[in-house]
Amino acid sequence: VAGKKENEGNLKGLFDFVDATDTFGASTWEQSEAESQRLAFGFALNKAKVVSEDIDILLAGDLMNQCVGSSYGLAEFGIPFLGLYGACSTSAEGLALSSMLCQTHKKIAVVTSSHFCSAERQFRLPLEYGGQRTPTSQWTVTGAGAFILEANNEVNQPKIVDCMIGKIVDAGIKDIGNMGSAMAPAVVEILTEYFRQTNTKPQDYDAIFTGDLGEEGSKILIEIMAVNGFDLSKKHTDCGLIIYKKEEQDVHAGGSGCGCGAISLASYILPKISRGEFCNILYIATGALMSPATVAQKLSIPAIAHLVHIVRG
Amino acid sequence: VAGKKENEGNLKGLFDFVDATDTFGASTWEQSEAESQRLAFGFALNKAKVVSEDIDILLAGDLMNQCVGSSYGLAEFGIPFLGLYGACSTSAEGLALSSMLCQTHKKIAVVTSSHFCSAERQFRLPLEYGGQRTPTSQWTVTGAGAFILEANNEVNQPKIVDCMIGKIVDAGIKDIGNMGSAMAPAVVEILTEYFRQTNTKPQDYDAIFTGDLGEEGSKILIEIMAVNGFDLSKKHTDCGLIIYKKEEQDVHAGGSGCGCGAISLASYILPKISRGEFCNILYIATGALMSPATVAQKLSIPAIAHLVHIVRG
Repeated sequence: VAGKKENEGNLKGLFDFVDATDTFGASTWEQSEAESQRLAFGFALNKAKVVSEDIDILLAGDLMNQCVGSSYGLAEFGIPFLGLYGACSTSAEGLALSSMLCQTHKKIAVVTSSHFCSAERQFRLPLEYGGQRTPTSQWTVTGAGAFILEANNEVNQPKIVDCMIGKIVDAGIKDIGNMGSAMAPAVVEILTEYFRQTNTKPQDYDAIFTGDLGEEGSKILIEIMAVNGFDLSKKHTDCGLIIYKKEEQDVHAGGSGCGCGAISLASYILPKISRGEFCNILYIATGALMSPATVAQKLSIPAIAHLVHIVRG
Repeated sequence: VAGKKENEGNLKGLFDFVDATDTFGASTWEQSEAESQRLAFGFALNKAKVVSEDIDILLAGDLMNQCVGSSYGLAEFGIPFLGLYGACSTSAEGLALSSMLCQTHKKIAVVTSSHFCSAERQFRLPLEYGGQRTPTSQWTVTGAGAFILEANNEVNQPKIVDCMIGKIVDAGIKDIGNMGSAMAPAVVEILTEYFRQTNTKPQDYDAIFTGDLGEEGSKILIEIMAVNGFDLSKKHTDCGLIIYKKEEQDVHAGGSGCGCGAISLASYILPKISRGEFCNILYIATGALMSPATVAQKLSIPAIAHLVHIVRG
């Protein structure tokens, strides 16, 4: 499920539902975001041909204070609910956790979202203020993604074969107009460790997607990984750079938000796996774990990245 | 780990660490709360005679926006980290999830906290305002609890034998000065369903603890459960009524917050199980999933309750 601007970018036409008003019929932006989660999960249930009662556990979270997008948007489904907070890493956090829980449960669902308008007024400035944005800043994606995982995978469909839970990495970055640089070190840490533990290298994968590093964070990632001996330049793509058309859409360093990775994965990456265009990918979503209060207190921004390894299986 | 007021109540002397200034050495309340999590987890590691590297996954969350108590307080441990948001249900959410993850991992840790001063200014009014509190309001507990779970339980120590993940229940309550009444229906739902599925009744347990229903919520719980055919009156205790001395400490309807259940469980309930004073209990922590924004938008308060069944095993 996506907003107007998202459907004017590179993923135009790939979404199950687009609201050209970005309101999703609600009267406040927070409720719009909640409604986007409700819609996304509804579509996921329909496409998987299951009903609420078939889902053992629903994992969800978003960027809004107290994750109200999930609690208000998903209440009506009546499914055992575990709230997550991983900032923009929520999609990968949920998928990683689901893949573990699938060992003891039949069906697990993951839902996450972000909304430009709810995020701006909560984390930055009210929209009415019309503040100028710095070139390294990113544009919060309006969109919600929902995923349903089951223990027994269908043939030739996306399958999580392993995952790695990230550690909190604080590289000392304090500029909230440059989230990419705060989050890139978390990807460096998890990717380097993952390549080491699995004894693999970038060339072993069809593609390596990060969630929302944007232009700045992606450059930093590729640069540091090269120093660590891994050439990501031909394999890495960031979902924040996939969604929008850089030249036309004025999003500065690219997209961001829980929805950024989630809707790219749901609408673009996973279908490519189903069609056999990708057979072996890494998906790493990153989150910046600060709050407006810690920013005001001049603390640096802790970041996290979680990795899921998805194959066509 | 607890604050001054908590150590003047019924659990006086049971905590590993008490800071009589409630600051935990930090210069802002948000950082005080983060520090309380760092201390609590440090004590848990020491008492369990393990080091950070022994912990496979750390699950944590708190009440502050973007759960910054956990991200700032626990970053230095360098453990794979999964952020949770379950409001005051976080302790039970974390324990339930840990008990599932223990089937595939060796050691899992859960940490949560709340702090009166960070919660008041975020959810209600700045402390300096000195607003009057309604009789049904509760007092957010200053404290952090940490738990370490492993697959192979020591003999005669607390053991989670099963758990139930709760569903979001919205009973239409809009009064944020009366959280007990918003959360009690979530306990009714999960307890009734748990008794049904396990074919047990209150008399089968040594005690049934809820996290922070307070006086108002506890009365509602007992009343509705009686209508459902279950007499909780002799078995139910609420952690919000355990911590403070009602007559002396002016906390109105009792304690609340993620820390309320967590420090009661860690300092009082689990030691009683270790000593054999309890052999079979239910612990149900409840959370109210609204935000100040949804309250301002006059939405009702969705609530959740998660249940863990703990025996001496």
